[in-house]
Order: sequence, then C-alpha cells, then structure tokens
Amino acid sequence: MANQPEYRMSGSGNYSYSRNSGFQRTAIGAAKGLINKAVSEKLEISNFVSSSNSPKAFRLADFGCSEGPNTFLAVQNIVDAVELKFKHHGLIGPQLPDFQVFFSDLTSNDFNKLFTSLPPERKYYATGVPGSFHGRLFPSASLHFIHTSYAVQILSKVPKEVEDKNSPAWNKGRIDYGNASDETFKAYEAQYLKDMESFLNARAHEVVHGGLVALILPGCPNETKHSEILFNKAIELLGSCLMDLSKKGIISEEKVDSFNTLGFFPSMQQLEAAVKRNGCFRIEMMDIIAQPKPQPKALSSTMRSGFEGIIKKHFGEEFDIDELFDLLSKKFEESFSSFDPKKAVTLFVLLKRNDSN
Amino acid sequence: MANQPEYRMSGSGNYSYSRNSGFQRTAIGAAKGLINKAVSEKLEISNFVSSSNSPKAFRLADFGCSEGPNTFLAVQNIVDAVELKFKHHGLIGPQLPDFQVFFSDLTSNDFNKLFTSLPPERKYYATGVPGSFHGRLFPSASLHFIHTSYAVQILSKVPKEVEDKNSPAWNKGRIDYGNASDETFKAYEAQYLKDMESFLNARAHEVVHGGLVALILPGCPNETKHSEILFNKAIELLGSCLMDLSKKGIISEEKVDSFNTLGFFPSMQQLEAAVKRNGCFRIEMMDIIAQPKPQPKALSSTMRSGFEGIIKKHFGEEFDIDELFDLLSKKFEESFSSFDPKKAVTLFVLLKRNDSN
Repeated sequence: MANQPEYRMSGSGNYSYSRNSGFQRTAIGAAKGLINKAVSEKLEISNFVSSSNSPKAFRLADFGCSEGPNTFLAVQNIVDAVELKFKHHGLIGPQLPDFQVFFSDLTSNDFNKLFTSLPPERKYYATGVPGSFHGRLFPSASLHFIHTSYAVQILSKVPKEVEDKNSPAWNKGRIDYGNASDETFKAYEAQYLKDMESFLNARAHEVVHGGLVALILPGCPNETKHSEILFNKAIELLGSCLMDLSKKGIISEEKVDSFNTLGFFPSMQQLEAAVKRNGCFRIEMMDIIAQPKPQPKALSSTMRSGFEGIIKKHFGEEFDIDELFDLLSKKFEESFSSFDPKKAVTLFVLLKRNDSN
Repeated sequence: MANQPEYRMSGSGNYSYSRNSGFQRTAIGAAKGLINKAVSEKLEISNFVSSSNSPKAFRLADFGCSEGPNTFLAVQNIVDAVELKFKHHGLIGPQLPDFQVFFSDLTSNDFNKLFTSLPPERKYYATGVPGSFHGRLFPSASLHFIHTSYAVQILSKVPKEVEDKNSPAWNKGRIDYGNASDETFKAYEAQYLKDMESFLNARAHEVVHGGLVALILPGCPNETKHSEILFNKAIELLGSCLMDLSKKGIISEEKVDSFNTLGFFPSMQQLEAAVKRNGCFRIEMMDIIAQPKPQPKALSSTMRSGFEGIIKKHFGEEFDIDELFDLLSKKFEESFSSFDPKKAVTLFVLLKRNDSN
C-alpha cells in the first residue's frame, strides 16, 4: 500500500473533476441500461432470497470513485436495479438486505469532499476506502457487486523503459504511446497487461463467488490504430502544447521528455484477452458504447481536470498553466473536424467470478 | 443524516486534535488491559472457528475516531487481541479471517488526514464512515466489535431549554451544567439519556448477536458532585474566561449567554441505568480508570483542540483566540492545586448484545 501512484483527478476550483466530468458522466448514463440488464439477468441472489429472517447486507464498491458526483449516479443505478430484482423475488420491507456502498479511490482523493456531498436521500450506508485498486482493499469474498467507470485505463505507473534514455522505448518529445515508437507502445501495453492482472487478481479475492464486476472504460474500437482514437489524439495535442512551451523556453525540453501520461486505452480484444489470461472471471456481457463528440472547450476543461495536478507536480507551479490549456483549447478547435466520434468509444464488460478457482 | 451536530475536534495547526490528544491517548493506553480481557473472556468466536474453509471478515468499528493517531492505537490493540484469540483456537494462516476496520466520525471530520496517516504496517482493511453515531451508520448485524473512546460524552445538541431565555433552564453566564441551576442540569441529563438511547439502539441493530461494544468515556466518580469533576471545572473556567472577555467588551455578553458546550460526563450509575433502560445489551464488564492529573499547559492545549473551532464559529473570528486560551492557561495554573486527580476518571463499560430482542 506504500507505493501508490500519484495520479488523481486533480484540477482545482473551476477545473475540478466534479465540475468537469460531464464526459465521464455521459458514459455512466449510457451504461445504465447495461447495468440494469446485468443485474436483472446475471446477478445471483439466491443467497439473499433463501436466507433466514435476518437480512444480509448487499455490499457494492465503486473503484476510482473520485470526489463525486458521477459516482453517486453510478451507485444509485446499481442500488435501484438490485432492489428491483429483490422485489421481483418477493423480498419486501424488512426482508430487503441493507445496502453498504464502498467508495474507493487513491488515498490522495478528496474524501472530505466526497463525504460532504453524499446525496442526503441515499438508501445505502456509505463508506470510503482509500488505496490503489492494483492491490487488495477488501476482505476475502466480501463484495457482491464491483463497479468501475473511467478508472482502470489508468496505469499504476509509467513503464520504466519509457523514461530510460538508454532504452529503445524512450519516449522523447511525446507524452503518450499513441504516435510513439513500437517499443514505447509495447512497454505501455505490457504495463497495462500487468496492471489488469493485478486488478483482476485482487478483485477475484474480494468478490463473492458468483459476484459481478462491471468494467466501464474508454477504449479503442477494434481495427483502429491507437493513434487515431480521440483519447490519444487529445493527449497527443497536450504533448505538442508542452513542446511548444518548451520551444518558447517556458518549460525545459528535458522535463517534457521525462513526462509521460498514465492512460492506456485497450481494444475490446485486448481487454478480453486480459480477462481470459487471468482466468478468475468469465465474461458475461460485452458492449461498446458510442460517445457523443465532445466540444473543444469542454474537452479542454476535462483534460485540465485530469492533468492539471500532475503537470504542476512535474513541471513546477511557476509557469502559467492557463497558457497551456488555452493553447490546448485552440488546438482542439483547429483539429475539431478531424476528430472522428466513431473513434471514441466506451467499453462495457461484465465479469462473473468463476466458481472453479 | 441531514441534522448533524457541528461538533468536531476542531483546533488547527499546533492546536489540532492529533497534536493535543495525549490525555485521550492515556485513556486508550489504560484501557488496553481491559480490552484484552474483554476479547479474551467475552468475545464469541464460534462462528469463525466452525465456519467452512473460506474465512469470514472480522468487522470492527471505532466511533468518534477523529483524525488520528489515537484511533490507530485503539484499533491495533483490538486487532492484536482478537488475532491472538483466534490463534489460541487453532486458526492460523489462511484460516484467520481478514480484519476490516471502519473509522467513523462526523462528516466534518478530516478523513483526508486520517487516510493519509493510516499506519503503513497495518494488518487490516481500512475504511471511513462519515456520519453521526446518534443514528444508523451500518447495515444490520454487520459489526463484531464496536469501540468508542472519549466520544459518547458529546451530546447530539445543546438542550433547547438551556438556550431559551424564557425557560427556568436558561443557562445565563455559564457554558455548561457543572455549577448551573438544577433545571439546567436536568435538561442536560435528559439530553444525555436521549442520546445514549439513540446511540445504543443504533448499535444494537449494527452489531451481530453476541457482539461486543466497548465504551470508554470521561465520567463522574460515584458520590461526587458534577461541579467537582475535572472536566466540568475546566469547562467552567473556560466559561469564566469568556465572561472576562465580555466584561472587557471584547465579545458580547449575549453571545456568552447563548454559548453552551456539548459534554455530559455521567457517573457509572447513570451510565448503567441508561444501558439497563435501553435493554438491548447486558453489561459484561465495568471498570473505572484513574487518569493522571494533567499539567495546566497541556490541559489548556487539549481544551483548545476541542473548543477552538466551535468558539470561532459562535463568537466570530475577529477576536484574539490566543488571548482566551492564554487566560485559561493562567487560570488553570492558579487553581491547579484545587484539581483533585481522583475526580477525573475514565469509565470503561463492555456491553454484549442480548440475544432476546
């Protein structure tokens, strides 16, 4: 638990995650129907229905919850769907189990903000769980439903070769793998596979047998080059803005060379392969959710809410961060027509814990 | 959950709770032996010992945990004692249940600070639970051990008669019940009984049958006047300092009249009566822990860590809070010899959930 990555949704004030997460919220809204279907068709509730008179708790976790409010919407969707299912099976009133919701994110997340903005009308007991989802955060077999939206695309760390001047994977002049060398891409992909493995292993311990894991994440459409997807194009442009500032002497080129972002946006095939390789879960549902094309200004604010903190941390607070994101907003406008909305998709995968291992 | 009291350990910087809670820490240290005894002799673990191969989680909550570090000591004591008991019953290695610890305090508590200072070497899964312990915070029958130290003496609110100019219980010129009129005392006592009832009712739902509740709180020795105990004397002196400032015109007398503290320090008899009246628990252990006499300066800092926030909130931030606590420190020194250490005690009561209701 000591070696936690520094990444968090880190913009402040007008650029906070809570004010600039409309894009991520759209994904949660779009996934609502899929979540309902998952609960209705795939959730096993026989343990609850057949139990004695004292109802058990239904325990649900959202990994990468950030500070709200998106997580509250996501969690409410699930609680409503599960409650409906219980009612269809004849559980009413005091027979209904209590819901306990665990909001989990890195220790650096603003849990104070999360807790003070909990919906007053919530029908669940709320708790916060600090720590990295690449490791264990819960007791064995203690969760019935795991949800994570726009979180598992964040790697636990930048692959070390990417920051090594003497490695063929060194990512000079770029901040992501989208248009980078094959070696850089492979280093990112290897880190993604390692992180998915540790994520799935940890969740396999924590979820009950028959429990569900809903993964919602930005991904790469099949048969599409990684360099062409919106997320990588947007980060690529942020990288080019940083290079522009370094050419102006505002920040050092060396600092740009040593700055690399943590996102990896897998294709459905890559995600499927990672799940199969791990072996603890079987895939119950898979779907691709189209995202509406974000407007340049909104995209710039979303990027700022995600990257402001780590940029300040890496480059220092001296330079004018507004200048960087104004430049980014302009570049988004110029290249807006070249952004193909079909190349920004959200992957939805529902996993069920295998009984066998 | 909406009407939460504003009380929290609220000093800042040098006067933060984490730096000025040595007095409370002493109580935790002194209670360690009693906690060990409670776990060793009174905790039922047959459910864990006889269960199938997949170990359950042992769930433990600390109510009124504040921001640390005292809560970490208290929780570690309990985890160590329970683990030892499991081992004595032959549970080893993977047969041992996981420990899940719920740190709970008001939503206004600094959970960010709590989470960032969690002991890295902890052997439990940590979670935070925001909300008032006068209401429900956990699913039914979900906790095996409940701990609360120096917290349940804080009332959910000041009794309204005490702040009503037209009531005989109006507490003009004082900030507590220690030397107040009989009517004021009765209003405080009634609020205490109501709050204990709601605390015990909530915990009775949350704890498993046979589960334990360890209450540790500052109290009044039997056969002692409430006005004579250290805690009330200290608050009485704080009240007289506020009156001094009002006489100097620094704060308004009316503001002093409308300011009342939230502490109520029951005798063991009063606490026992509240538990019996509630009826959900039986008393398994009772003990009185003597407290070492605190030094004037330390006492003043402890008081400041507890009261600075609510004083600023009530009187505004304009006046010099240092002046108030310097004055208090002086008054403590002057009256130090009259503080009878026998009149500052910590009550320890161990409750077990009845099976019958």
